[in-house]
This record gives sequence, structure tokens and C-alpha cells, in this order.
Amino acid sequence: MSDTREQILDQIKVQGDLVRQLKAAKESKEKTAPSGGGRASSAGVPALEQQKQHQKQQPEQQQQEQEQLHQIDEEVARLLALKAKLGGDAPPTNQKFTLKTPKGTRDYGPQQMMLRQGVLDKIVQVFKRHGGEAIDTPVFELKEVLTGKYGEDSKLIYDLKDQGGEILSMRYDLTVPLARYLAMNKISSIKRYHIAKVYRRDNPAMTKGRYREFYQCDFDIAGTYDPMLADAECVKIVVEILDTLDIGDFVIKLNHRQLLDGMFQACGVPADSFRTICSAVDKLDKSPWADVRKEMVEEKGLDEAAADRIGEYVRLSGGSELVEQLLSDAQLKAVPNAVKGLEGMQLLLKYCSLFGLDKRVRFDLSLARGLDYYTGVIYEGVLQGESAAVGSPVKTSQQNGEQASEQATVGSVAGGGRYDNLVGMFDPRGKAVPCVGVSIGVERIFSVLEARAAASGLKLRTSDVEAYVASAHKGLHEQRLKVLNQLWDAGIKAEHSYKLNPKLLVQLQHCEEHQIPLVVVLGDAELAQGLVKLREVTTRQETNVKLEELPAEIRRRLQTA
Amino acid sequence: MSDTREQILDQIKVQGDLVRQLKAAKESKEKTAPSGGGRASSAGVPALEQQKQHQKQQPEQQQQEQEQLHQIDEEVARLLALKAKLGGDAPPTNQKFTLKTPKGTRDYGPQQMMLRQGVLDKIVQVFKRHGGEAIDTPVFELKEVLTGKYGEDSKLIYDLKDQGGEILSMRYDLTVPLARYLAMNKISSIKRYHIAKVYRRDNPAMTKGRYREFYQCDFDIAGTYDPMLADAECVKIVVEILDTLDIGDFVIKLNHRQLLDGMFQACGVPADSFRTICSAVDKLDKSPWADVRKEMVEEKGLDEAAADRIGEYVRLSGGSELVEQLLSDAQLKAVPNAVKGLEGMQLLLKYCSLFGLDKRVRFDLSLARGLDYYTGVIYEGVLQGESAAVGSPVKTSQQNGEQASEQATVGSVAGGGRYDNLVGMFDPRGKAVPCVGVSIGVERIFSVLEARAAASGLKLRTSDVEAYVASAHKGLHEQRLKVLNQLWDAGIKAEHSYKLNPKLLVQLQHCEEHQIPLVVVLGDAELAQGLVKLREVTTRQETNVKLEELPAEIRRRLQTA
Repeated sequence: MSDTREQILDQIKVQGDLVRQLKAAKESKEKTAPSGGGRASSAGVPALEQQKQHQKQQPEQQQQEQEQLHQIDEEVARLLALKAKLGGDAPPTNQKFTLKTPKGTRDYGPQQMMLRQGVLDKIVQVFKRHGGEAIDTPVFELKEVLTGKYGEDSKLIYDLKDQGGEILSMRYDLTVPLARYLAMNKISSIKRYHIAKVYRRDNPAMTKGRYREFYQCDFDIAGTYDPMLADAECVKIVVEILDTLDIGDFVIKLNHRQLLDGMFQACGVPADSFRTICSAVDKLDKSPWADVRKEMVEEKGLDEAAADRIGEYVRLSGGSELVEQLLSDAQLKAVPNAVKGLEGMQLLLKYCSLFGLDKRVRFDLSLARGLDYYTGVIYEGVLQGESAAVGSPVKTSQQNGEQASEQATVGSVAGGGRYDNLVGMFDPRGKAVPCVGVSIGVERIFSVLEARAAASGLKLRTSDVEAYVASAHKGLHEQRLKVLNQLWDAGIKAEHSYKLNPKLLVQLQHCEEHQIPLVVVLGDAELAQGLVKLREVTTRQETNVKLEELPAEIRRRLQTA
Repeated sequence: MSDTREQILDQIKVQGDLVRQLKAAKESKEKTAPSGGGRASSAGVPALEQQKQHQKQQPEQQQQEQEQLHQIDEEVARLLALKAKLGGDAPPTNQKFTLKTPKGTRDYGPQQMMLRQGVLDKIVQVFKRHGGEAIDTPVFELKEVLTGKYGEDSKLIYDLKDQGGEILSMRYDLTVPLARYLAMNKISSIKRYHIAKVYRRDNPAMTKGRYREFYQCDFDIAGTYDPMLADAECVKIVVEILDTLDIGDFVIKLNHRQLLDGMFQACGVPADSFRTICSAVDKLDKSPWADVRKEMVEEKGLDEAAADRIGEYVRLSGGSELVEQLLSDAQLKAVPNAVKGLEGMQLLLKYCSLFGLDKRVRFDLSLARGLDYYTGVIYEGVLQGESAAVGSPVKTSQQNGEQASEQATVGSVAGGGRYDNLVGMFDPRGKAVPCVGVSIGVERIFSVLEARAAASGLKLRTSDVEAYVASAHKGLHEQRLKVLNQLWDAGIKAEHSYKLNPKLLVQLQHCEEHQIPLVVVLGDAELAQGLVKLREVTTRQETNVKLEELPAEIRRRLQTA
């Protein structure tokens, strides 16, 4: 079918060239004789003027032109007839736009899907081990649901066009939709996971696993509980996931928003600047302190002395001994928020220790997290060492400024924290549902694993086919269909060539390329005795098997393989 | 934490009322004494005039007003202080929009997700049995990718707002993105499945499983192959899926676009009206022939005699005997397209027969399918009898006109066909990749199964927790964390209360409600001997188990259960 079609396309091309030649010839004649040519380019020439020019033409010239026009019309008609042969869906012969996915997005091919599915399955296993229930929400929300939840990042939200009806925006994360879901359904406690794509009009750095459309894998615990029990379990979940994915060494940084606020207060930051100064601190994983200090002082108008005091604190990190030290810090001791934050951190570290996480967690005062809605514990899982730098080493030499930050941030593969007020923002009576949760940065994990797979040169199998049904010679396609049907009905994964008479060699090559373990080879000689050949692809050993015993024999071979 | 917050919210409410009262009192005084009141409503009063009025006031009046203003300011400050207590994320005290998901969309709660995941798992199993590979594409595409692919339905496409950069639209199906993917990556053969949400600004009938955001499960076979081999396998796949989902009796209607075009030609429809007349025929599953005929004649200007001839054909359905009959039909015999379509149908029915599908398929000349891009075989899986009517029996009495059509269409749960020109529309050289595929209407299947689950009253388990770790008395939360950690590290799905000292009865009730099979009950007496109680929830039998043997013992119990 496609051959015929391509022949027509070739004919269209030839015919199209002919029409263009004729038109060009006519036009060049008109150019050399500008006073003639009734159909000369009329741009800017008034209609009446054209008419006058036309009347001035010689009869001979006119006739010649008529013939030319007639020929062109005829050839155009032939061209149209050819195009009509292609049917209603004739393709535009010249595609006017570049064939691509939208900026910051990508397709996943079969190889990438296998890898992705493997990662997601492992993550879900951990979520379920902790009693998680799955939910799903729409990909877009009423715009008002997202308004006022993301601080400075709100400008990155994708809006839908107003086509009449509601005004909608694409979800920016899975946390705000969860809060809307809880408030709307008056749910006061749940342990839920949600794996879905979210959308941010950010500047993508796709080689580092940063996209505009990307997967989030979230686990959240909602409910009014005793302090830090749920929070510590979220940290445990992150550790279990990063362990099971085996993507290299990592550490979970911990901090507390209340401590940050208390620390800002102790350093002399005005209360109404806490969030904006917090945003600046959040950049410490990408920028050196000097740049962050500059932002605080020059852009955000903070007192230099206050900035320097902050600078002293944010360089601190450690374990419970650091909490003790800060609890006796004269400046912090005086601020109730700081003391509460530190006490919370002490309890969290204790629970983490009971979960065997001492070497996995680090209290780090420079951790701030960008989102506005956090109110308590915050944490971030960060890859350490080599694996954190996997990405695009090619780029590094070109982009100096950006590169340093890119390389630093690819290390962050999980993050989360406590947000006790978000659900209340949706409840008409302001009823709060305290929540704590974690989001796994799977795209970055995919990037690391894809780079590793590419480096190893190993090819993942992208289908699970167990048996291929082949013809040894011509005229066997109906037999193939019968055998296939028998295998499918027995639950065996099987396929064949969709050609009536494929060559045996081609069929066997397909099996080797696609790592299909078994081939059922049909031939008249065997079929006459109710037999088929069963061939093992790796060993190339063949045995005759009774047709009615084929499914059972295949199953037996697969189990012992 | 939430209590404190709610107390503050109550205080804010009281304080807010006080401020409003004070302001109202002041305003009413100003209204009764319009010549006074320096801060009287200034709407329309020029500034100079206000100043003059102010100068006319008595000193006493002025002082009284000053005091009033001072009091208001003080109370407003108190209100602001209270609001500040809530932190930066103070909720709007009155939610200004209805808390809902966008029109035509819904959340999936844990129960629905369990059901959905079960359905999708079964479908994927069938796709994999036929050698399917998974791919995924972005949720939106460049708008041009979708342009000109959906005929009359293009108006239902969701566009994104132009926020600078590319112009994007939400995907309308998974077929056009597949074609774009194949052309972009120059893939000439693949057997792929894709399960993802698509978007249509249709009038939703959600109780029937018709949404604006809905899942599609597509399986497509791309490649240049011999006729009908891949097509018949797609029909087989639909049958396997509907069988495994066990949603009731069904039939797969078959037809052929080439036959439809040939039949239109034989009936005297002008060639340029084939697609629009085909759209009219497509409505036969929702509307009686009289309405469709009216649309053809009155809206689409078709000759009455031609419409009547079409009417004769579209009432025909049957098996291969009908193909034979039509092959000798004088009108059709004369039209090459009709003959080719019938010959294709003959071959398809033969292959379906080899797949054991004789009783599952029916050649039906009224089947047309709405989409423009089909070029060969088309098919549709339709539920028969009672199960097809599951939906909203409540609505039936209210909506007469709509109801008949709604009830008829809920029956369609799968559809597809051959589209040989779609990929070529994306290729700059027009290179075609012939494709045939099927789309499973899972939302309608969910609706049927949800209605059935609701009717049965059975509650699905929404988490897989195997063991609950409980405290028999106070002060055991740290012990619980240690035991939980032991279980999680052994891969056992376990949870506990996030309260420090939960009541034993409450913990046991939780296990019964959530159908958790085992409870590990911790108590000081047992722990002192290195033991814990293991309780079976259904039998309430308890045995002491050594702590170090707990994971193995739990695993043993789960296997024998």
C-alpha cells in the first residue's frame, strides 16, 4: 500500500516541478517585457492601470499568452488529480513546522519506559510497605486552587486558554491538589501516594533530568498526630527508596522552618521578610554565600550585620550534638520559635536513630526549600560524590556560570516537609489538617540510571515475548494463526511475523535481536504428524513437540530457563 | 497543633466582628450627621469641598471622632497581630470559590484506584501477551500537530494559554501523538501500547463514564505487512481484554472504510461528501435512521434517493455470508472501492475464525467511526444486554431526548481501525507507515465495574498492610519504632498509630476496619523476655513469638493464610 502511495508522491513531485517550470518561464518572459503580461505581478498597481496595460498588448502576444496559460491550467489539473488519488488525507507536501515535542518535554521510548517502570515499581513497593493508598487527581485545577500557594514560583504555572467556562491551570505539584482533595472531601487522615506528571514553565536543563513536564512520586501522611512520628517515617521512606534504587551514596539533609524563622528573628530580620530571606537561603545549594548575601542586602534590603549573622549559622551542619550546641546559643535561646524548632529537630533525630538512620541524615542549617507552604520539618535527599555529577559533562566547558549550579543541584533527588496550614486554606471554616510528605525526584533518578545504562552498553528487553511462531516454508500463515491462538489462550506471550511468507532466517534473527527465548517452527512434515519444532534461541537446540502439549512444554522450558 | 490554630481562627473571627461593628457604628453616625465626619464617604465630593466641611466641625465633635478612630486602629492592630500568629500562609477566612474539580473531571479515591489499577493491570497483561512495548508522550503537543486531524471534533481540543513561546494543545487521543512519534523518530515498525489520559471539551455525561479528562488504553501495530494479519490480531486483543475483565456479553462490530466509500459512491454520494456523510452514518448508534437521513438531506444537501439507498445498506449486518451476498450486489460490484473493502472484510473474517472469534464478531454496515483518519478496517466492541445499561437509571425519567442516546452509547467499550496515511502527514517527504490499532474505553469499563461494586456492597482493601504494630499500654512508642524498623527492613508491609499512647482497642479496631491480617502487640512483660504477642485479626488468636523470629513467623502466617 505504501509503495503505491510513494509512487504517486513521486509523480506529484515531477508534475509539481513541471508546473513550477512553466510558471517560471512565463514570469521571466513577463519580466523582460514588462509592458505585456496581463497577469504580471499586480502588487501596488491599481486595477484600472493593469487593464490599460492589457489593452495595449499586441494580438499575437495575447494569443501566445493564452496558449501558455492553457498549458499551465492543464498541468495544474493533472497535479490536482494526482493529489486527489491520495484521498482526503493528502499530506501537506511540505511540513511547515518542525516535528518536535514541546519545549522541556520528551517522549519515552520502549527502552526508557522499561527503565522508568522498573523505578516506579520499586518506589510503589516502598510506599505500600508503609501502608500507602493510591489516589489520582485531574491534571488541571481551577486556577484559583493554585493561586497564592507557590510564592515567587507562581509565574511558572501553565494556564489553559479561556475557551469559555472555567479558568484552569495545569498542576504545579501534587501537594496542592492533595490539600484540595482533603478539604473538598473532608478527609482528616490518610496515608496516600500519588505518582503523576506535573508542569512548570521553568528553564529546562533536560540533560540533568530537569523538564517542564515531569513525574512526581509523592507520599504524604495527613492527620493530627503526635510530633515527629510521621515526619521520621517519611525520612525512613526516602532512605528505603534511595537504597532500593541503588543509585549511589546519599545523605538526607534535615532542617526546620520554625528554627529558620527563629534564627532569622535572632539575627534581626524583620518578621515580614522571613519568607523572602528564606528564598535567598534556599539558593545556597546552587550559589556561593557571597552571592546569597548580596541578594539579601542589595535586592532584599537586609541590614548587612543581620546578613552576616545569618551567614554564621547557615554554614553549620551536624547531628544531635549540633542541636545541643544551638540550644545553648545565647541569641537563639531567647527566641521561642528557635527553641521549638531545635526541640523538634532533637526528637526527629532520636526517631531517625531508632530507624537506624544515624549515618543517613544530617541536620543542615542551610537547607531552606523554596515552597512557601512548609511550616515544620523540611528535608532533602542529596546524591553524594560521582553519581551526583552524572548528566551532561559535555556542557560543562561551555557554560561556566550556570554549570556550577547545575552540577550541584542534580544531586537533589528527594525533598519534602511538613505543611500544617495548606489544607486549611481550602476549608471554608479554615479547619486545618496537618500534613507531612515527601516527593521523589524520579526524573533525576531516571537521568542517572539512563546515563549508567548508556555507559554499560547493555540493552534492556522492551517486550516480554516468550515464544515466536515461525514458518519453515511458504503457505503456513493460517497454521501460524492457529498455533498462536492456542498459545495466547494458554496465557503464553507469543508473536509472529505479519508477513504471509517470511524467510526463516529473518524470523530467527528477529528472535535473537529481541532476546525471545523460544521459537516454534512450523513445517508441513512435522504438522502432518501433529508435531512442531521447539527451538531454544540461545543454544539453537531443536526438539519435536506434540502440538497439543506445546503450551505445557513451553511453560516447562521457561521455568527451568 | 490544629487546636491552637482553630482557637486563633475563632479569636480572629471575634476580633473581626468587633472591628466591623466599630466601623459600622462610626459610619452610621456619619450618615445621620452628613455635615460632620471628616472621613465621610468621599465618592464624588471634591477634595476641596471635603476640606471645607472638615474646617466647619466643632472641636468637641472632632475629639470624639479622633477617639473613635484611635479605638478602631487599636482593634485592627489586634486583628492583624492575630492573623500574623497564623504565619505567612494565613488562610482567606472566606473561600471565594467553590471547591471542586474542573468540569468533566474527577478525583480517584483509594477505592477507585484499586479498581482502576486492577483493570489496567489486566489490560497490560493482554497487551504484553501480544508483544506490546510501552511508550509515553507529553500530555500536550504543538498545536499544529493536532490541526487537521479530527474533522468536526477539532473544536473540542483544549488549548493552552499563549504565555510566550510555543502554542500548545492538550492531546485529544493517543493516536496522533503516536503518528508524530513514529515520523519524528523515523520508526517504520513497532507494536506499542500507551496508557494515558486524553482531553476533550465535550459535554460530559460522567455517570455513564464520559469525562473531559479520561484514560485511553491503546495498542497499535505499525509497519508494512500483509493484509489483515495485524488487523485480525487487534480484534483478538479486544476480545481477550473484554473476556478477562468479565464485564458481560459483548460483540465486536466490524466494517471497512473503503467499503463505506464504495457504498457511498454506489449510492450516488459526490466524492467530496464522503467524509461528511460518513460522520452522519456514525450517529446511527445514537440516533434512529430517520434523524440521520434528515441530517444527510437537510443539513448536508444529499439527494433523497441517495440517502434512501444508503438506508438500505446500513441496516445490514451478519457474517461472511453477507460479504458473499454484497460481492454479488449489482450496485457495489461496479465500484472498485466497494469490492476491495468486501474482499478485505472476507479475509478479516477468515482470520477471526482461525482465532476462534466467529461468535464474537459481526460485520455491520452501520459502523462508521467518527474520526477522519481511518482508511481501512474499523471496529467497535459493544456491551450487550443488561451490563450495557448500567449507569444512571435515576436520570432516565428526566432527560428524555438525551437519555435514549446516552443509554445506547454506554455500550461501546473499545474501538479502532486502520489508518495508513496519518504518519505520512507528519513526514516531510510524506513517507507513510501503515498502522492499525485499538483503544479500550476504560472509563466506561470503570463505570460499569464501579456500579457493580457499589451494588454488591463489598469493600475493596485499599492498602496491603500485612502487620500492625500496637502498644498494649503507655510508653512503648520507641519500642514500636524499633519493631517496625525490623519488619520494614525485612520487606514486610507494616504500620502503627502515629499517637504516642493510643488505646489498644482503637488500634485493634483499626486493623479490623482495614482488614489487616496480623497485629504485633507490644507489652513490657513480654518484651522483658524478648517476646511479642502475634494476633490474628479474624480469629483473635494470640501467640507469643521471639522478637528475632518475628519477620519469619509473619511471613509464614501470611503464606498459610
